[in-house]
Amino acid sequence: MMNELVQTHMTTKLITLGPENTLGEARDILIDKHIHHIPIVEGRKLVGMITSWDLFKLGKSADEYKSIKVKEVMTTRVATLDPDQHLGAVAQLLTEHLFHAVPIVNDHNELLGIVTSTDIIRYGHTKEYPENLEKFVGENM
Amino acid sequence: MMNELVQTHMTTKLITLGPENTLGEARDILIDKHIHHIPIVEGRKLVGMITSWDLFKLGKSADEYKSIKVKEVMTTRVATLDPDQHLGAVAQLLTEHLFHAVPIVNDHNELLGIVTSTDIIRYGHTKEYPENLEKFVGENM
Repeated sequence: MMNELVQTHMTTKLITLGPENTLGEARDILIDKHIHHIPIVEGRKLVGMITSWDLFKLGKSADEYKSIKVKEVMTTRVATLDPDQHLGAVAQLLTEHLFHAVPIVNDHNELLGIVTSTDIIRYGHTKEYPENLEKFVGENM
Repeated sequence: MMNELVQTHMTTKLITLGPENTLGEARDILIDKHIHHIPIVEGRKLVGMITSWDLFKLGKSADEYKSIKVKEVMTTRVATLDPDQHLGAVAQLLTEHLFHAVPIVNDHNELLGIVTSTDIIRYGHTKEYPENLEKFVGENM
């Protein structure tokens, strides 16, 4: 499975914010959508990422979030891949650096998609059990 | 890969806390070890889980953590698997419920290990690229 192309498996319906948005807006999105990563863009260009882990580490109360801008907290050195790379490259980044998502960009650093650890596990799993998921659940869980 | 047994791939060196520990202690461990999940035990029995996501959602400042006990915030309805189940069962739990870790327990609900999304991706990846990781990195990253 790791030889499949990133572009085939990336999520392209993305929720993004800009650097001038607040942590309050980031928090609302993370909780409402139950996601862990929000790519930060200016126009279409990726300029950072903000994650539930970043907000946890910050140690501030949610009340303080509306006066803090995303750009003050976001990670700006984001590891990215391009859509022609393989899922194996995503897996390597995720496991070596303990990330859980990799944004996919083109040569102009424009955001095209994201691949998360859940995407990779889901793909590996449904590929191995395409027909008999129901049966499998019954037997094992 | 999904047919392999959980016991072969679970992490058994675990950092745990008890329900009477504080969120301050939980926060320190999560950050120091860069992990997202801490199983909560009484003796050897699993009684809950606390995660970086739980603390993020709570919305309190880190200053308040030392006066809040783990038992006030931990998830007590934890999905578990036993060591004789397959990695496919872990993958199913992770993808359907958007967990990122599953504690492994015996018939007495005693904690034996944990399997995380990173464990599964690492295993799938190194199994497919056992020999030429260096070469692969050079080509793709």
